[in-house]
Amino acid sequence: MKDVTPEAAERHKAKMVRRKQVQDAEVAQKTIEKGLLIVNTGPGKGKSTAAFGLALRMLGHGRRVGIVQFIKGARHTGEKDALEAFGDLVEWHSMGEGFTWDTQDLARDIAAAGRAWDKACAMMADPAFGLIILDELNIALRYDYLDLDAVVAALAARRDDLHVVVTGRNAKPALIEAADLVTEMGLVKHHFAAGVKAQAGVEF
Amino acid sequence: MKDVTPEAAERHKAKMVRRKQVQDAEVAQKTIEKGLLIVNTGPGKGKSTAAFGLALRMLGHGRRVGIVQFIKGARHTGEKDALEAFGDLVEWHSMGEGFTWDTQDLARDIAAAGRAWDKACAMMADPAFGLIILDELNIALRYDYLDLDAVVAALAARRDDLHVVVTGRNAKPALIEAADLVTEMGLVKHHFAAGVKAQAGVEF
Repeated sequence: MKDVTPEAAERHKAKMVRRKQVQDAEVAQKTIEKGLLIVNTGPGKGKSTAAFGLALRMLGHGRRVGIVQFIKGARHTGEKDALEAFGDLVEWHSMGEGFTWDTQDLARDIAAAGRAWDKACAMMADPAFGLIILDELNIALRYDYLDLDAVVAALAARRDDLHVVVTGRNAKPALIEAADLVTEMGLVKHHFAAGVKAQAGVEF
Repeated sequence: MKDVTPEAAERHKAKMVRRKQVQDAEVAQKTIEKGLLIVNTGPGKGKSTAAFGLALRMLGHGRRVGIVQFIKGARHTGEKDALEAFGDLVEWHSMGEGFTWDTQDLARDIAAAGRAWDKACAMMADPAFGLIILDELNIALRYDYLDLDAVVAALAARRDDLHVVVTGRNAKPALIEAADLVTEMGLVKHHFAAGVKAQAGVEF
C-alpha cells in the first residue's frame, strides 16, 4: 500500500478537482434519453452473461424484461431458475432447440429461428417491456436463418423507450451500424483450454 | 430466409454429424472441476454487468454469492435492489466511497480499499460462498491502493471450489497470469459518445 505524504495528498486533491470539472462538463453534455440497441459480440465469455446482468439491473428498477433464446434453450440454466424469483416481471422464451450440431436439421433450425423472431416482434410491440434480450440472435443471422435487412429494420424501428440487447458471436456489420452500444468480448484466456469442464453456475 | 433443398439438408446433416463428433471429443477431454479466478477487464461495457449475470446463474443453483465493491458504492443501483429478492443467499458490501474525482482524498481512498480487501478475505475464508465478486478491485490495484503481490497470492490460494470474479479496467499482468478465465471487454461503439446520458437500468 502507498504511503501518502501531505504533498502527495495535496497534488492528488488538485488533480481530482480538475478531473471532477472535466467529468461534470462531460456528463452535462449528455442529455439524451433513449432506448438503446445493445450488441454483445466477440469470441470471449460474457456476452449472454452481461445481458442477464442488465436484466437484473432493469428488474431492480421494476421494469419488465423479456428474453428470447434463439439457439440455446434445450438445456436448463441457473439464470432461468433465478429469474423466476421475479415472477411476472420476467417473460422467458427458449425458442432454440440446441446447437446446430445437436439438431443436425437445417430446416428445423430455420423454422425455430423464425418462430423466435416472431416472438421477439410480439414482445417489441408490447409497451410493458423495458428490456428485451435476443440471446444468440447473431447466430441465427450469421447462418442466414433470418432476413438481415428485415431484422435490422425492425430493431431500428423499436419504441423510443425500449432497450434491446442482441448477443452472439460474429455480429453482422449492418447490426453494428444500427446499434447504440457495441461491446466485443475478447478471449484473453479460457479455462476450457486448460481442461476445465463446463460447471454449474459458471457456464449454465 | 434460406431455402433448404434436399441436397442442402443432406450436406448440412453430414457436416453437423462430423462437428458433433469433434464437439463430443472435446467435451470428453475436459474433466477438471475447479473454482475459477475470473477477470473481466478492458475499456468496454459489461465487466461488472457480466459478473452480476454470473451471480444470477450461481443463485439459480442455490449457491451463496458475496459481493464487495471497491470503488463504486456511493450510488444506489438496480442490481443491488434486485438481488435483495434472494435474501440471505446474497451478501453485498459497498466499501467504495465513489470515484476518485468525487472523494478527492487519496488517504481516504486507500483506507477504503484496505477495508474492502479485509472484507474480501473474510468472505474467501467462509466456505458458505460459491462465488465472490470483487467489483473494481482492478482499479484499487492500478492505483497501488493495495499490495499487488499479497492480493494475487490470496486469490491464488482460494478454496478449490470457490469462484472469484475480479472486475475493472487495466487488470495487472500478474493477476491475468494467475487467472483461469480472462475476458477483455472491447469498446466498439458507445452511446455516451452520441450524447446519451446514463440511464436507469442500463448504467445503474
